Amino acid sequence: MSQFILPSKATDTVIAGRLSELGIRLPSPWAITPTAEAAFVRVIGCRVLISGHVPIDDEGGIAGPFGRVGGAVSEEQGIRAAERAMLGIFASLVREIGSLDRIGAWVQLFGMVCAEPSFKGYPKVIDGASRLVNQVFGPIVGRHSRVAIAVAGLPFDVPVEVQAELELRPEA
Amino acid sequence: MSQFILPSKATDTVIAGRLSELGIRLPSPWAITPTAEAAFVRVIGCRVLISGHVPIDDEGGIAGPFGRVGGAVSEEQGIRAAERAMLGIFASLVREIGSLDRIGAWVQLFGMVCAEPSFKGYPKVIDGASRLVNQVFGPIVGRHSRVAIAVAGLPFDVPVEVQAELELRPEA
Amino acid sequence: MSQFILPSKATDTVIAGRLSELGIRLPSPWAITPTAEAAFVRVIGCRVLISGHVPIDDEGGIAGPFGRVGGAVSEEQGIRAAERAMLGIFASLVREIGSLDRIGAWVQLFGMVCAEPSFKGYPKVIDGASRLVNQVFGPIVGRHSRVAIAVAGLPFDVPVEVQAELELRPEA
Repeated sequence: MSQFILPSKATDTVIAGRLSELGIRLPSPWAITPTAEAAFVRVIGCRVLISGHVPIDDEGGIAGPFGRVGGAVSEEQGIRAAERAMLGIFASLVREIGSLDRIGAWVQLFGMVCAEPSFKGYPKVIDGASRLVNQVFGPIVGRHSRVAIAVAGLPFDVPVEVQAELELRPEA
Repeated sequence: MSQFILPSKATDTVIAGRLSELGIRLPSPWAITPTAEAAFVRVIGCRVLISGHVPIDDEGGIAGPFGRVGGAVSEEQGIRAAERAMLGIFASLVREIGSLDRIGAWVQLFGMVCAEPSFKGYPKVIDGASRLVNQVFGPIVGRHSRVAIAVAGLPFDVPVEVQAELELRPEA
Repeated sequence: MSQFILPSKATDTVIAGRLSELGIRLPSPWAITPTAEAAFVRVIGCRVLISGHVPIDDEGGIAGPFGRVGGAVSEEQGIRAAERAMLGIFASLVREIGSLDRIGAWVQLFGMVCAEPSFKGYPKVIDGASRLVNQVFGPIVGRHSRVAIAVAGLPFDVPVEVQAELELRPEA
């Protein structure tokens, strides 16, 4: 298991530095409503389960465009939407666990696309989320399995939703 | 991890008492057919994976109404269906692990709604299941991440199906 | 947890022998494209997460028939497609972990069917994958929870996709 343990506490700003290097600014985390019945992030020991996240704008609101990929939303916009969903996951993680450097391993992404029947490029759309994980966390920590399917509908009429599971580094 | 460990074996009827307090009677568990190729509940060490559960009536049969939320099934009926799916999960858990007091942490719910295209309130429907978990198990043990989406179809024409993962308390 | 630990290293060809006994030949594993952003198999300690797998032919290419179950694809062909998806998972596992004898427990299958609206037999279709796991690994190691739903679309227009989670035996 040592493959995905980062070397030391000296790495506490590694991911923040990497984000800055890539020119990526994290959005404000998705606002939690007081009546919410589910948590955006559930931590159980080293395991972290992330609720389905929709695309988030810089202020933590739900980002457009809305509608179906292959219709009102282009493939390229779908890829961007998957990236914004992953940025929302990053922001929720920072709120919950404090630092992205605590992440020892990405495990799996479950990518859901709302698309016109003629559009079949779900993996290409969800690659927007996967690529971001790989770019920011690198090929060892970022490595993940994946599902990329079309669903019949997503909340708020967003074109993409991403759920994720990952693991924290064991406490030093 | 100690946050989700209940104090002692003296708690062995805590959840049964809580159900009674809330006026909730568990249904008979969903009947297992002899030719079933999958288990309703899979226990691996402390991890418990629950198969997708449809709404269950008091006798352990599949409960109506049938059809799509936003069409033949109203939103309110959809919420009730999500509750009945969760009650079915509770009943399957009792059959498999003996007591709901063995549950140390709910982890994640995957909620699937069969809906008319115009209906988008999947999270509100799946809140029926989430709220029940929170009411019965409280905000620490019951805390869970979630996905709430529309699927193209569910077995038996039910409007809602819920899959879940949770963890057992370490053996005392 | 000892229930799913096979007795010894002497078992290293148990599953290969079982496959031969059943007359099952594993296909070549699904070809990995150099630009792939996700892994087919993710191993984290003892946990193994499998990406969504489509039906695979003997040479590791995507297998037909294509289209929807209940339409261009018959129920029987759907069952065969679920089997070919699981054979593809077996092949990906061999490539990643070397031997299927390292598997200590199947955990869960997530089965997705692309079907005509009139077709509701998703569990029967996904039974093709579940039955194969049970036949090859037996009722203790092979035991798994499951979801079997209809999705709005699958990549490459395949009728079935299967995702899985399992656990490795602790290293001897």
